[in-house]
Amino acid sequence: MDLYFDNAATTRISENALAAYAYASINYPANPSSVHKAGLEAKRKLEEERARIASLMGTRPESLFFTSGATESIATVLSSLLLTTHGKVIISSIEHEAVSSWLPALREHGWKAAVLRARNGFVSPEDLRAELTPDTKAVAVMSVNNVTGAIQPIPELVRTVREYEKEGKRHILFFSDSVQALGKVDFPLEGSGVDAASFSGHKINGPRGIGMLYLRQPQSFRPLAPAGGQERGKRGGTENLPAISALRAAVEEWLPDAEANRKRIGRIREKCINALRSMGLRILSPEASSPYIISFASPLPSEVFTRMLSDRGVMASSGSACSNNARGEGERILLGMGIKPQDAARAVRISFSKDTSEEAADELIRIMEETVNGR
Amino acid sequence: MDLYFDNAATTRISENALAAYAYASINYPANPSSVHKAGLEAKRKLEEERARIASLMGTRPESLFFTSGATESIATVLSSLLLTTHGKVIISSIEHEAVSSWLPALREHGWKAAVLRARNGFVSPEDLRAELTPDTKAVAVMSVNNVTGAIQPIPELVRTVREYEKEGKRHILFFSDSVQALGKVDFPLEGSGVDAASFSGHKINGPRGIGMLYLRQPQSFRPLAPAGGQERGKRGGTENLPAISALRAAVEEWLPDAEANRKRIGRIREKCINALRSMGLRILSPEASSPYIISFASPLPSEVFTRMLSDRGVMASSGSACSNNARGEGERILLGMGIKPQDAARAVRISFSKDTSEEAADELIRIMEETVNGR
Repeated sequence: MDLYFDNAATTRISENALAAYAYASINYPANPSSVHKAGLEAKRKLEEERARIASLMGTRPESLFFTSGATESIATVLSSLLLTTHGKVIISSIEHEAVSSWLPALREHGWKAAVLRARNGFVSPEDLRAELTPDTKAVAVMSVNNVTGAIQPIPELVRTVREYEKEGKRHILFFSDSVQALGKVDFPLEGSGVDAASFSGHKINGPRGIGMLYLRQPQSFRPLAPAGGQERGKRGGTENLPAISALRAAVEEWLPDAEANRKRIGRIREKCINALRSMGLRILSPEASSPYIISFASPLPSEVFTRMLSDRGVMASSGSACSNNARGEGERILLGMGIKPQDAARAVRISFSKDTSEEAADELIRIMEETVNGR
Repeated sequence: MDLYFDNAATTRISENALAAYAYASINYPANPSSVHKAGLEAKRKLEEERARIASLMGTRPESLFFTSGATESIATVLSSLLLTTHGKVIISSIEHEAVSSWLPALREHGWKAAVLRARNGFVSPEDLRAELTPDTKAVAVMSVNNVTGAIQPIPELVRTVREYEKEGKRHILFFSDSVQALGKVDFPLEGSGVDAASFSGHKINGPRGIGMLYLRQPQSFRPLAPAGGQERGKRGGTENLPAISALRAAVEEWLPDAEANRKRIGRIREKCINALRSMGLRILSPEASSPYIISFASPLPSEVFTRMLSDRGVMASSGSACSNNARGEGERILLGMGIKPQDAARAVRISFSKDTSEEAADELIRIMEETVNGR
């Protein structure tokens, strides 16, 4: 039985996505930027994939740019600030390191940076409003936190910024890293009014090495360097058509049934939460969280408990996705939310996929009980 | 018959590479940065692949970092300059746009930039020496030009820099974009003394979306932002293990037989060059070029001639690899070498793979003759 519960870190590539990868590799082998027949065929295929993905995401193909992953999408947006006149950037204290690690470089280049706390796990419009100043140029708040699953009130936060803008008459870039949102929570991309958002393929059973950057008004965006000029000058490098085709296949599997899956996974999550509580464990994820993520305080230090689970065949995460490289990263985010240090140090994350079965969840609960009871 | 002669733009992924991609996708599905058993297995596999590739490239695994492609490897190196105190950067006039497009951003950040001409297609140690100044911090000269195939005298250029350094007692970063060199020319990576080099997977029958950054002394290198801290802090983002496995398979197919293939492809190239000359066409590639590339002046504007070839089933390139996005890019490079404008405007590039057959070359020559003779 598949007891992989680390889907917020990465998901398995689906059969359809892998097949689409191979199909495009074999049937569209040319460089989409080459002008011969094989290149033009690859280019047409690329634009078909973009149109299909955009349609399923409820946006225009002109607003979607393919990158090598969310980390690069984020870097594209944040590094572009280095080209503009300094000002203030406001980011939340619960951002993924792919965002927060930009602060030193921005500060070295003269940017002022304010870090917004997230009391109880959420950034509040009031706290954001209090930080907005005439020199504020950019705001970055993620859509769904990767450690707890907390769904941030993006539409309200954007509205707060837009209202402030009317006073200053200058546009403020609102960027939302939306890796854990796509397909997993109710997420009105165009409706939210964000200016830019980042997405990853491998969190929804797509391949590694492909992501997307959404730009509401691409014409006003300038990357640090256009390199080969691909992706209409927003992202250089030979277009990764096989991975883009695979991403399209994954998006086709996730998005049309997203609501039904959210409900089904929500019920599984509820069952797990009840079971964890009945074991005397504290749930760290707030109420308004993604159905795909549960963070809880285990009875032991995070790494000890996840190793015990791992020995019993259950793959769960201690803290964030990248804890090999960024120990304490999940802990930092939990502490920032006001979680007590002793709970944060024992935090364990379980994360589901749309394919997680009820049987697997039952087995997870059984093994969890065994582990908690020290059997 | 496969009449694809645009291998400098991209190559087909090999069967072994595609199989390695699928194998790793299915058998090592976890995030290599996760600390559970499945994550640790993926991590071990990742390091095995790195060690194997490094061994075949004659370098240490500690010096090889996986990126999403050469464009990102280049961006990692050049953007890192933005973190250091301004100075002078020297780049050749024949760099790929992935390098040259960084000049505006560097200049905006206060860097002085000198562009080195490449008379007859080559950067000379004397011209480089003349540009070296006490404030010079970085030099970027590619290993093999992508338009002509001209092999740059990298060891001599590095020696020129190292000798100058002794006077100033300050290290100058020597970066060489080596995309068209790997497997295709005699290329002593460690022997050359370069500090950094960029490589691409899809130019040697590997997959798209994977590349490498070589750093001779990684400990002295700091990227603009470490993101999730993967690749020992040099490159953030979930490691693309399937593509890395596929790259390893491609490197295994290219490197051990590189010399024999160079000789065989060199003979095919010679035959093509003789045939083109006997059609009255001028060869634009200099003598010391990669056996994998021929640039010649066709009787018609580049795009007209390549379209005629394409209609006859021959895929060749007008100018550089990325001409859909960067029209005139190849022309710029040829003009910079001292090629006459009327020849540069008619330049066509034929590029081989190690799998190019003599029969395919014969058919290419036949179709070329037909096209030149207007039949």
